[in-house]
Amino acid sequence: MTMDPTFSSLLDAIGRPRPVDPQMEDAARYRHDRLTKPPGSLGRLEVLAAKMAGIQRSLRPRALPGRCIVFAGDHGVTARGVSPFPASVTASMVANFVRGGAAINALTRAGSIELEVVDVGVASPIPDVSDVSDGRAAWLDRRVVAGTRDFTVEPAMTPEQCAAAIRVGVQRADEAADDGVAVVGLGEMGIGNTTVASALTVALLDRAPSLVVGPGTGADAAMQQRKIEVVNAGLSLHAASLGDPFELLRRLGGLEIAALVGVCLGAAARGVAVMLDGFITTAAARLAVELEPECRPFMFAAHRSAEPGHRHLLDDLGLDPILELDMRLGEGSGAAVAMPILEAACAVLRDMATFDEAAVAGASGS
Amino acid sequence: MTMDPTFSSLLDAIGRPRPVDPQMEDAARYRHDRLTKPPGSLGRLEVLAAKMAGIQRSLRPRALPGRCIVFAGDHGVTARGVSPFPASVTASMVANFVRGGAAINALTRAGSIELEVVDVGVASPIPDVSDVSDGRAAWLDRRVVAGTRDFTVEPAMTPEQCAAAIRVGVQRADEAADDGVAVVGLGEMGIGNTTVASALTVALLDRAPSLVVGPGTGADAAMQQRKIEVVNAGLSLHAASLGDPFELLRRLGGLEIAALVGVCLGAAARGVAVMLDGFITTAAARLAVELEPECRPFMFAAHRSAEPGHRHLLDDLGLDPILELDMRLGEGSGAAVAMPILEAACAVLRDMATFDEAAVAGASGS
Repeated sequence: MTMDPTFSSLLDAIGRPRPVDPQMEDAARYRHDRLTKPPGSLGRLEVLAAKMAGIQRSLRPRALPGRCIVFAGDHGVTARGVSPFPASVTASMVANFVRGGAAINALTRAGSIELEVVDVGVASPIPDVSDVSDGRAAWLDRRVVAGTRDFTVEPAMTPEQCAAAIRVGVQRADEAADDGVAVVGLGEMGIGNTTVASALTVALLDRAPSLVVGPGTGADAAMQQRKIEVVNAGLSLHAASLGDPFELLRRLGGLEIAALVGVCLGAAARGVAVMLDGFITTAAARLAVELEPECRPFMFAAHRSAEPGHRHLLDDLGLDPILELDMRLGEGSGAAVAMPILEAACAVLRDMATFDEAAVAGASGS
Repeated sequence: MTMDPTFSSLLDAIGRPRPVDPQMEDAARYRHDRLTKPPGSLGRLEVLAAKMAGIQRSLRPRALPGRCIVFAGDHGVTARGVSPFPASVTASMVANFVRGGAAINALTRAGSIELEVVDVGVASPIPDVSDVSDGRAAWLDRRVVAGTRDFTVEPAMTPEQCAAAIRVGVQRADEAADDGVAVVGLGEMGIGNTTVASALTVALLDRAPSLVVGPGTGADAAMQQRKIEVVNAGLSLHAASLGDPFELLRRLGGLEIAALVGVCLGAAARGVAVMLDGFITTAAARLAVELEPECRPFMFAAHRSAEPGHRHLLDDLGLDPILELDMRLGEGSGAAVAMPILEAACAVLRDMATFDEAAVAGASGS
C-alpha cells in the first residue's frame, strides 16, 4: 500500500525520534545501586528515573517543568447516540477549562504543571469567556474543522484535515520543547471519543469490539451495545483501507486524536518525554508507534483507566502504569496526577548522596 | 489484665481522638457528583477527598502543608545478626538526613513536604554534621536511651522508656498541629527494625512468622531464617504478657516505633490526618489502633511495600494503599510520594466547579 503523499511529506517534516541513550540508562542503574539505600529499594521509582536518564541523556534528569496539553474535538459519530452527553458539552468543557473549573485545572495546579488547551476541531462555538480576566489555562484556537464526519457513513476526515490536525500537535510539542518543558502530559476532551478510540483500538490490536468498548462517560448497557454496533459499522465500511495507519486515523479517528499523534511524534523528535493519560491518549500513542516505533521509548503510562480497552493498549505497548486509581475521566487527569511521581523519581537519582559521599557503611559482603 | 499505671495516665494525657464527621463525608460525595465530570470518574481520588473532608470537617479539605517525621532508633536484636548492615548505619543515616543526601530528603523536596528527623533512641553518636550550614532537615535530639535491649533476652524497653518515647511522638504531632500541618507522614530509620515490626505483627495478627518475616534491607535466605528464629524466641520469652498492647510494645518494640504510636494517637487527638509509609510505620499504626480504635479513621496507606508483612497489616486495618511501586525503603519514602496525591484529591473537591456553576449540560436523563 502506498502512503498518501500528504502524510509521507508530513512525516519527513517531523523528523525521526532523537535516539534515547541506553548507556545513560545503565549508568543510572549503576548510580542507583550506590545511593544511600539498599539496591532496588525504591522499586519502580528507580526504573522510571533510569528511563528518564536515557531520554534526557543525563544522570540528572528532571520532569519539571511539566505541561499538560488538552486537545478538544468533536465527533460525527455522536449522531449515532454513543454518549449520554450532548456534543455541545465539548465546547462547554473547553470554556470550563479556560475558567479554571475542571478537574484538569485543579490537578495541574496541585501538581505545579502548566496547562494548555487547544481547540483542534470543536463543532460549536466556545461559550463566551470574556469575563475570565486571569486566564486560568492557556487557550489556543487551532480549529481545523468544526468536528469530524460520521465514520459509519464516510471517512471522519479528509487527508488534509487529518494532516493539519497532526501538524497542530507537532507544533505544540515543538513549542513545549522550545520552552524547556521536560514532560508533556497528554489530555483530550471530545464527547464520543471513547467510541472513536475503541474503533482505532479494535483495528490496531485486532481485538473483539466487545472486549474493547466500555461505558466511557456513563453509557448504560444498551448504549454500550450501540457503541459496539457503531464500531463494527465503521470497521466494515473502511475495511479495505485500515492496513495503512494514516488511513485508519483519518477514516476512524478524531481531530484531537490526530493532534495527540502529532505530539507523540513531535516530542520524540525533540527528545521530550510524554506522559500518556487514559484510553483515548493511549490509542493515539499506539497509532504514533504504528507510524514510528522509535517514539515508544519516550512514553510513560500514568495510570490504568477503568475503561476496558486501555488495558489492551498498555499491554500491547509494554507500558506498566504508574498509578491504579480507578480513574476514567480523561482530560489528562491521570497524567497530571502521575507527573509529580516522575519528578520524585528523577529527584532521587539527581539529588541523593552515594554511600561514599555520605560516609555510610554498606551491607556486609557488598 | 491491668494496664500499667504509667501507660493509663499517658493515654489520659493524650486525650481521645477528635471524631471525624460522617455527614461531611456524605456532603463531599454529594458535591463530587455535581462537579463537572461524570460521577465517580475520578475513582479513588474521590474516596480520598471525602475521607479528608470528614477528618477536617470541611468541604474544602487540604493536604498542605504536609510534614514527614522520621524517628530513628536502634535495636538490641541487631546483636542476633538480623541485618546485613551494622547498627552504626542508623546514626550515619541520621547524619545523611541532616545533610540532605537521603531518599527522604529528595522525595520531600520534590513534593514540597517539610521534613523533621527525630533521634528518639539511636545507640551511637550522630556523626559530626557541624559543616552543614543550611540545615536540610530539622533535626531534634529527643533520645530516650541509646537503643533498646535484646528482646530475646529481656524486654526491649522499661515501661518508663516506652512511655517517654510515645510522649516524644505525641509532642511532635502536637507541634505539627500547632503549625497548621494538614497531613503528617510517618517515617523511620533503625537497623533491625523489620525484625521488630515482624514480631509485633505476628503477635498482633496471630500470623505465622514465616508469612510475615521478609528480606528487610537485604537479608538473604539464611538471615531471613535467623529473623524468624529471633521472632519466635521473643514471642516465647514474653508470651505471658503479649495480650496487653503496651506490654507488647515495650517488650518487643522499638523506641522509634513507640514514637510512631505516639504520633498516631496524638494526631488523631488533634484531628490531623496521618500518611503511613511501609511495614514498620504500619505496624506502629496497628498498635495505635489496638490502643485506641478511633485513631484508624485518620490513617491513609501510602503504598504497599514489597515487605510481606505489610500486606497483612494493611488488610487487617482495611486500608487500600494509594500506590504500588514495589518500594521497600522506609524512611517515610512512600508517604512522601503519596502525600501529593492526597493533595491532588483535595484540590479536586475544593477547586472544581459544579455543572451549574460552569453552565455545562449534564448527561441526558440525569
